[in-house]
Order: sequence, then C-alpha cells, then structure tokens
Amino acid sequence: MSSSSLDRRFASDPVFELHHGGKMAVTATVPLTSREDLSLAYTPGVARVCEAIAAEPDLAADYTWTGHTVAVVTDGTAVLGLGNIGPAAAMPVMEGKAVLFKQFGGVDAVPICLDTQDVDQIISVVTALAPSFGGINLEDISAPRCFEIERRLDEALPIPVFHDDQHGTAIVVLAALRNAITLLDRKMDDLRVVVSGAGAAGVAVTKMLIAGGVDAAEVVVVDSRGIIHGGRSDLTPVKAELAAMTNGNGLSGGIADALAGADVLIGVSGGQIPEEAVAGMAPEAIVFALANPTPEVHPDVASRHAALVATGRSDFPNQINNVLAFPGVFRGALDARATTVTDGMKVAAADAIAGVVADALRADAIVPSPLDPRVAPAVAAAVTEAARRDGVARR
Amino acid sequence: MSSSSLDRRFASDPVFELHHGGKMAVTATVPLTSREDLSLAYTPGVARVCEAIAAEPDLAADYTWTGHTVAVVTDGTAVLGLGNIGPAAAMPVMEGKAVLFKQFGGVDAVPICLDTQDVDQIISVVTALAPSFGGINLEDISAPRCFEIERRLDEALPIPVFHDDQHGTAIVVLAALRNAITLLDRKMDDLRVVVSGAGAAGVAVTKMLIAGGVDAAEVVVVDSRGIIHGGRSDLTPVKAELAAMTNGNGLSGGIADALAGADVLIGVSGGQIPEEAVAGMAPEAIVFALANPTPEVHPDVASRHAALVATGRSDFPNQINNVLAFPGVFRGALDARATTVTDGMKVAAADAIAGVVADALRADAIVPSPLDPRVAPAVAAAVTEAARRDGVARR
Repeated sequence: MSSSSLDRRFASDPVFELHHGGKMAVTATVPLTSREDLSLAYTPGVARVCEAIAAEPDLAADYTWTGHTVAVVTDGTAVLGLGNIGPAAAMPVMEGKAVLFKQFGGVDAVPICLDTQDVDQIISVVTALAPSFGGINLEDISAPRCFEIERRLDEALPIPVFHDDQHGTAIVVLAALRNAITLLDRKMDDLRVVVSGAGAAGVAVTKMLIAGGVDAAEVVVVDSRGIIHGGRSDLTPVKAELAAMTNGNGLSGGIADALAGADVLIGVSGGQIPEEAVAGMAPEAIVFALANPTPEVHPDVASRHAALVATGRSDFPNQINNVLAFPGVFRGALDARATTVTDGMKVAAADAIAGVVADALRADAIVPSPLDPRVAPAVAAAVTEAARRDGVARR
Repeated sequence: MSSSSLDRRFASDPVFELHHGGKMAVTATVPLTSREDLSLAYTPGVARVCEAIAAEPDLAADYTWTGHTVAVVTDGTAVLGLGNIGPAAAMPVMEGKAVLFKQFGGVDAVPICLDTQDVDQIISVVTALAPSFGGINLEDISAPRCFEIERRLDEALPIPVFHDDQHGTAIVVLAALRNAITLLDRKMDDLRVVVSGAGAAGVAVTKMLIAGGVDAAEVVVVDSRGIIHGGRSDLTPVKAELAAMTNGNGLSGGIADALAGADVLIGVSGGQIPEEAVAGMAPEAIVFALANPTPEVHPDVASRHAALVATGRSDFPNQINNVLAFPGVFRGALDARATTVTDGMKVAAADAIAGVVADALRADAIVPSPLDPRVAPAVAAAVTEAARRDGVARR
C-alpha cells in the first residue's frame, strides 16, 4: 500500500490531517553547527560529563535531560473508552499526553508503548528504562493489573511513578469536591459519598477522598455487581481492601440503594445510572458523572435532582479533566527531585487546583478550564512544597 | 547536596555549562492552545486515529511520530573509551547522538539507557519497546555481546536494528578506502588489508570491506593475542568465523608479521602499533589509525611510511567519523520503511559518502567533513534506493 493512497483515504479529515507525521519532535537545545560545538556537546568534551556522573550518579539529573523528562508508558490494554487496542494503536493518545505535559507543565515526555501485557515483564521493562527518565507516568493500563504494576514499580524505582488514570482523576475530583462543598456550605466529614465504579479511577478516587477528609465509613463503592461490602465472595484483593475501608454501615444492594440519601455521586464506571436512583439522593446533592463520551447520567437529567453537576466532557460546564493535574504534579515532583508521589502531594495538588478558582466560585465553574495557564504552576509549587514536607524531596 | 554547590563546582567549565539541563527537548508539532485544538489532538478526536491504527497497524508509521523516530539504546558497557560506566553515565553520549541524528538526518531520536547488562533481558526490553519507534540504533554495547544482541533483535523486529559502533564505523572506513584507492589508482581486489582489532568495529569493518570488494583471503585480522587464524584455540565464535573467512594464506604471528608487505592498515583496537611494523608495509600504503583519543600510530609517524593517512580525530585531516553515516542511514531506512539494514544498504551508504568528495579528491580530503550538509541527504537517498533494490522496503 502506497502512502499516497493512505493520504487520499483520510485527506478531507481534519483529525487525520493533524495527526499526519505525528504530533511531536525532538529538538536540540545546544548549538551543533561548528567543530567547536561538536567537541563540547559530543566527543571529546562529553567524556568528562560521563566521568563526573559515573563518580556521582545524582549529577545525571543536572547534566542530562533526565531531570526534566518523563516516560508516558502504556501497554495499550485500556485506551480511552476503546479498551485493549494494543501498543501501536495507543500511540496517538500517548503522544497527545506527551505534548500536553510539555504545553502545560514544561515537562519533556516520551511516549513508550510496550509490546507486552504481562505484568512481570512490564515491571522488568520499565525498571530497566528508569535511568533514562526522571519519572514514569503510567497510562491506560487495565485494572486490576494497574494496581500491582504501579505498586511494584513505585517500590523498585527511586523516581516518581504515577498512574494518571487513577491519581490524575482522583486529584481533580477532590479539587472539584472541595469547591463544591464551599459553594454549598458543607463540610467534607459530613458527606455521604457514593463512588460508582471500582476500576483504576474508582479505587483512587475513593482513597483520595478519604485522604482529603471524607469519612471512610460514609463512602460506598459500587461495582457492576452492586455495593461492595465484606460479605461478597467475588472481590479482588483491591476490592476486598475497599470493602474493609469503606461502607461502615454495611449497606448492600444496587446503585439505587447506595444513592438513597447520599450527598455525592462520583461516576467513574462507564455504566448508566437511572434517573430514579439519582432522584433518591439527599437535597442539594452533588453529581460528578465522569464517563466519556457518555456520562453515567446526562448532566441535564442530573441537574433536576442535584445542586451541582460536573462531567468529563468539554461541552458541559465543570469539566473534570486530568490535564489539570498531571503536568503540574510531575513538574513539582521533578523540581523537588522527589523519589515518589505521596498522598500529601496529591492532596496538595487538589487544593492548588481548587484554589485557582476559589475567588470566583460559581456553580458552573467549580474547576478551572483545562486551558487555564495558572493551574500547572500553582500545582507544581504546591507539590514541591508537599514533597519537602513529606520528606521525599532530594532538593 | 544542593544544586547551587554543584553549579559552583563546574561553573567555569564550558563543557559542564553547555550540558547543564541536558542537550535536548521534546516539542509539540501541532497547536494546543484552544479547546478545538485539544479536541483534534487529544480526546475525543484522537480516538478515531487509534481505531484506524488498531484496524491497520501499518498506519502507525504515517499517523504517529514513530515513522521518523528511533531509539538510541545502550547498556553503558562500552562508552567511548571509558568502558563499562553504566547507564546513567552513558546518557550524555546518547543525548549527543540523538541531537546529531536530528541535526544531520532530520531523525527524531530518543536516548534509552538500560539498567541491565544481561543479554536476554536487553533483547526482551528492546523487543517490548519496538512499537514505540521506527528503528533501533544500538550504541556502546561491549563485544562480543553486541553481536548476539544485534542479531537476535534484527531477527525478532520488523524495523531496522543497527549497531553503530560496528556498522557506522565500517561504512565510513569503506567510503574512505574507496576514495583512497581512486587517488592511488589501485583496485579493491588487489589490496592486502590488515585490520587491527577484533571488537565491534573490527569485525564489522572486516565484513564490510569484503562486501565492498576486498578479497577475503587477503584480509588479516589481528587481536591482542596476534593474527587470527584457524589454528588458534582461544577464539570466540565471532573470531572463529573471522578465521574461517579471512587470512587465506594462513599467516600467524603478531602485528608486524601481518603488516609485512600489506597495502592497508585499519586500526580499530585502541592498542599501539610500533613504527617498525608500519615501516614494513608495501609502498604507497594506506593507514587508518582510528583509535580515539590516541591513534594506534601517530599520523605524523604513519605519514613517513604511508601515502594516505586517516584518523578518528578532528584535529588531523581525513577524520573517519560515524556521523557521516548514521543520520543518513536511518533517514534512508525510515524513508523506505525498511524492515532491516542490508549489506547492500551499507555499501550504498559508503559509496554515497565517498561520492560527495569524489570531484575534489585530495590526499588530505578522502572523506567529507563531519559537518558537510550534503552527506546525509546523499546517504539517505542511496540507502532508500538500496532498500528497494534489496526487497526490504515497505514503500
């Protein structure tokens, strides 16, 4: 097949036109036009930098690009809503992520799409890659594999490992909830919260809300089989952990049972939630229906029963978009030369996102726009400070 | 240790000043400033590109950056003349290589320094990385491990795998020898050639010269223990292969025995060769003493006994520098979407390099300057054409 026939096929499509040749490039940041340039940037000069790093490995972060560079790593098992489409087809998303890292956080990011879906091999490969990067952003790796992969890599590596589908979403949800309760004059530890979905995002949102001040006993997580409680025999280890941590009142049943009288619904499931169930929530309810492209409950429907509504979509108010979090989180972690991303750093990121619009809170503006240039610097500064407070900063 | 103390330590050193923060960056090649931009480059638009690639994986080369991007992969075992300094300390060299790829070949290159020196694991890691790149440039991996790693990766992967320390050097040596014999009015198949050194470069130079027309029986390879011949019991598999292929006259002994009456000496050993041995060469001899920074025989000494002398150094005439080869070789291989790099492509690259200065040949200009902008495009065009001729081009 010739490239000209490909071009014809997609010629009038602006998405394919934009993607032709990919979305990113590598550029030199030093001059390379004279023999003198070459002798400084390459042989023989470079040898002295190599020797200095060999003697003192921490110098690599200062004298190579690793100090400002992360890998965006996927195995292609859970790409957007498309599912397990494999590494080659995942690349356009990873490139998109990489350019967002640069645009918003000034972080150089390299997309790495792995031709393996074996947990042990993914861990082995990423561990081997680690000297090449200052951080690892895991992306679009299916649950529950993503939990083990992140945990083992975080333990093994001296650099931050961050699964964005979990923590990026969780950070922005916490930020939005902070501003939502300010508007409604509520308090975190008074809320009854339902998390619909126990995949990567659901698990992380649950833990983040608890870290952010929600009473764990008043959180109920619902998966495709209903409310998660200790009496169920079909729980994965991660869901068993959720059962032990949440649902202090021992609820069982379906989503409608969970929502009866609840103050907050966080939908991260991709499934649909009937209007009747939402109608059973407490007065002045908060609904974040984050599935893309089809929210768990349409925002127009949710608005009939809730005081505040957010979605994951750009064509409705209050878009919960990970891009509010990940560029600043990694910028801050790299600036602190953090060895990991602590809960304290994630909560600090959420508070910083919320803070950007705190002076101009409206029911249709509880989070900043994804394009707001104030967000990433504010997140980065808060994350750096939290890394130092938590004792994981190397500078 | 604070970063300010690091800065003071290296503050007045132009090499460290240039290397501070590294030598490269990632840049977006598409606009990302409006919601409309985001919806094309990222969600929801990107999903259609993912689906197209999932249905037809070859589209990845057109609609992601992989079509123009290579990995520069090392394990840090044989970095410059520094030896086994490990992956972190190798990064400055790999970044230098990457920016040279861009500067001369327009190829985007990502430095990958692996935290493993196990052959099987290196192969496993690079195989897993392959969907992320259009080619693999192996770099500074020690012999004889480099031979097995390259062979097995080349067999396993559908993209070009090229160990530059072998083939880059070999291509430029062949180019220089082509022009040298033109100047001296000699013929390839009349030459008696001695290759001093049987590491990565020595093995590849030997094979390339034979592919380029030198009579295999008239090539003698010398390692640190002397002339390689079938009677030796200490040969690695690769050296045994050399013994079977070369030295048709069954010579034995040391470098002086090899050089007695020889027409050409290619030094790729790093060892020293005494003047007396060089003095024993045939009249109008050709000496390429390529060890860096100390040539096997100083060019001033070699000139007393040879008609043409080249080195690897920029401060003497006729610098044999890999940068004349690798940017154009990968540019040409990517343009052809080649599945491998054949001997025919390598010989074509050598002929193209030689051809750039063919009209202005002088004894002190048998190869182009490493900065000559005509070289990479000429090499790329020749390599693309050879890939098609050899049946390994996908377009």
